[in-house]
Amino acid sequence: MNKLEQELSDRLSRIGPPDEQAVSRAAAYLDTLTKPPGSLGKLETLACRLAGITGELRPDLSRRAVVVMAGDHGVCAEGVSAFPQEVTPQMVMNFLAGGAAINVLARQAGAEVVCVDVGVAAELSHPRLVAAKVRPGTGNLAKEAAMTREEALQAVKAGIDVVDRLYGDGVRLFATGEMGIGNTTPSAAMLVALTGIGVEAAVGRGTGVDDAGLARKRDVVRRALDLHRPDASDPLGVVAAVGGLEIAGLMGVVLGAASRRCPVVIDGFISTVAALAAVRLCPQAASCLIASHRSQEHGHAAALEALGLSPMLELEMRLGEGTGAALAMHLIDAACRIMSEMATFAQAGVSKG
Amino acid sequence: MNKLEQELSDRLSRIGPPDEQAVSRAAAYLDTLTKPPGSLGKLETLACRLAGITGELRPDLSRRAVVVMAGDHGVCAEGVSAFPQEVTPQMVMNFLAGGAAINVLARQAGAEVVCVDVGVAAELSHPRLVAAKVRPGTGNLAKEAAMTREEALQAVKAGIDVVDRLYGDGVRLFATGEMGIGNTTPSAAMLVALTGIGVEAAVGRGTGVDDAGLARKRDVVRRALDLHRPDASDPLGVVAAVGGLEIAGLMGVVLGAASRRCPVVIDGFISTVAALAAVRLCPQAASCLIASHRSQEHGHAAALEALGLSPMLELEMRLGEGTGAALAMHLIDAACRIMSEMATFAQAGVSKG
Repeated sequence: MNKLEQELSDRLSRIGPPDEQAVSRAAAYLDTLTKPPGSLGKLETLACRLAGITGELRPDLSRRAVVVMAGDHGVCAEGVSAFPQEVTPQMVMNFLAGGAAINVLARQAGAEVVCVDVGVAAELSHPRLVAAKVRPGTGNLAKEAAMTREEALQAVKAGIDVVDRLYGDGVRLFATGEMGIGNTTPSAAMLVALTGIGVEAAVGRGTGVDDAGLARKRDVVRRALDLHRPDASDPLGVVAAVGGLEIAGLMGVVLGAASRRCPVVIDGFISTVAALAAVRLCPQAASCLIASHRSQEHGHAAALEALGLSPMLELEMRLGEGTGAALAMHLIDAACRIMSEMATFAQAGVSKG
Repeated sequence: MNKLEQELSDRLSRIGPPDEQAVSRAAAYLDTLTKPPGSLGKLETLACRLAGITGELRPDLSRRAVVVMAGDHGVCAEGVSAFPQEVTPQMVMNFLAGGAAINVLARQAGAEVVCVDVGVAAELSHPRLVAAKVRPGTGNLAKEAAMTREEALQAVKAGIDVVDRLYGDGVRLFATGEMGIGNTTPSAAMLVALTGIGVEAAVGRGTGVDDAGLARKRDVVRRALDLHRPDASDPLGVVAAVGGLEIAGLMGVVLGAASRRCPVVIDGFISTVAALAAVRLCPQAASCLIASHRSQEHGHAAALEALGLSPMLELEMRLGEGTGAALAMHLIDAACRIMSEMATFAQAGVSKG
């Protein structure tokens, strides 16, 4: 085991189970509030989950960040995206200038957007950009490994490091986001490798390829899996062979947040596949995940199902960047407010059923 | 036609179609923003819908209110609810004291809670309560008409009047909410009467009746429909025979908001049935409706479908009060912010696909 592997292993050993006593206390308190038991549905589940993660019934989650991991993909050479690869660095600059959808929705949620260059195929420099480039884009997974195992470990570490720094600044709620033209293809390949579902079920239209593009994506995923034969029991090997640098980075964000007992809101297809890979690496990390929305991307529902998560928003979105996760922060706030502000049956003098 | 009927008819004649030119302008503008076309899904649909309703691409919806109509139900004598009828006035006082779930979620949404006594079976007095009691609870619809046609008209007028007053105060976004122990039973009866779906599909567990209670509710709905044989083409007759005062009041809220070209967010089962009845009375009112969530109450999905609406939140809630509608205001704000704050491809220097 080399140094990075040892570091990761140490970190994973710090990820513990949810605080079941806090969950029980939250559930009992919810039943004293002036509403039929359970009638706030997933908001109640969420309040209990937050208690389990943080150990507190009313955690302070006011400091929050959407971590947007950016990376490029050699597989774009196969014609798998509706957008040219130059859009990745262009959109990173848009994030840094505050003009993208994630900036708008994060602002609304009171969250900081933290943009990390973990593998963009262009030289980027900006005072607010987190420079953590492992390599300038992955290899073309249809023909070679996306990256080496060591590079995957470096990208995971980049995610953990960002969380550590933000945690030090007081951030207690994280969301995952990504930018990387072509990244639904590696995500679909990882989903197939990790779960064994069919290629047809995993591969979708991404930002909007036509029928020919969809057929190319499916063919690419089949060829990549034939070539690399990734082992589902080795998630790092999977992300190295057929994944992406930003996907590995998001695995690090999930593992970092879990090791800090912070909830991490997962966004769409790419983020959910990253979370699934993180959970395969460390099953205890699952309890820190909060699903936000079900996107329109074909494989997202299957990825959520593999994690046993049920999303709260049905908005037919397919943008990524963390946009669905940012929107879900409002529901997290709602769950916290319910725990803090509602009257009990006794306080309000209301009869129980 | 008596005075109230004439007044209502005049009001309905003021409800017009959406501004299709504004819808087109909103759709065209959305396609200039830095995202794949349509990738914000229902947020984009919502932005277009708001443009159609208000005629503006960036309407100011900062002043908003959740109108909570409260009424009691004679049908409670049949044992159709898990809670005693005294809970209706108790919860009204809880709303006025600010301790109920709707108060918490409306506060979060920056919305006022306006509570209207349109038919509570108790004497209530509070400086912030809108006193508009038509009668102290409905008749038992299993044995007699819930109310007279004139009373139904009075309750509808109460809803319109509240909207008129709030509109005068600057409110431009409305949400429907209700409180009335027993009110899923009349709502289910109305849904069957208006759409012809089966009783089994329309009747659910409300706040949580057991199997015996569910069977009683279904039996009551069947008996009521046999007794009154309401005519689907006469929505006022339907709400008078088998509806509720707060349901008629919410019909008024919908019609009032539509006549003012204001969006109205509809909440759960009862609110959606009220909206359906309003739309049957005036089909043009449909374009002002914004669906919020799909509740756990059995018939809600069918009621939404009858209106051709697709909700944005899947929270398995079943509380009513306007809680789901209040949560959806955040998504309305998100749609407005997208229209105001996102960069265009040209501004950001991002390549189009």
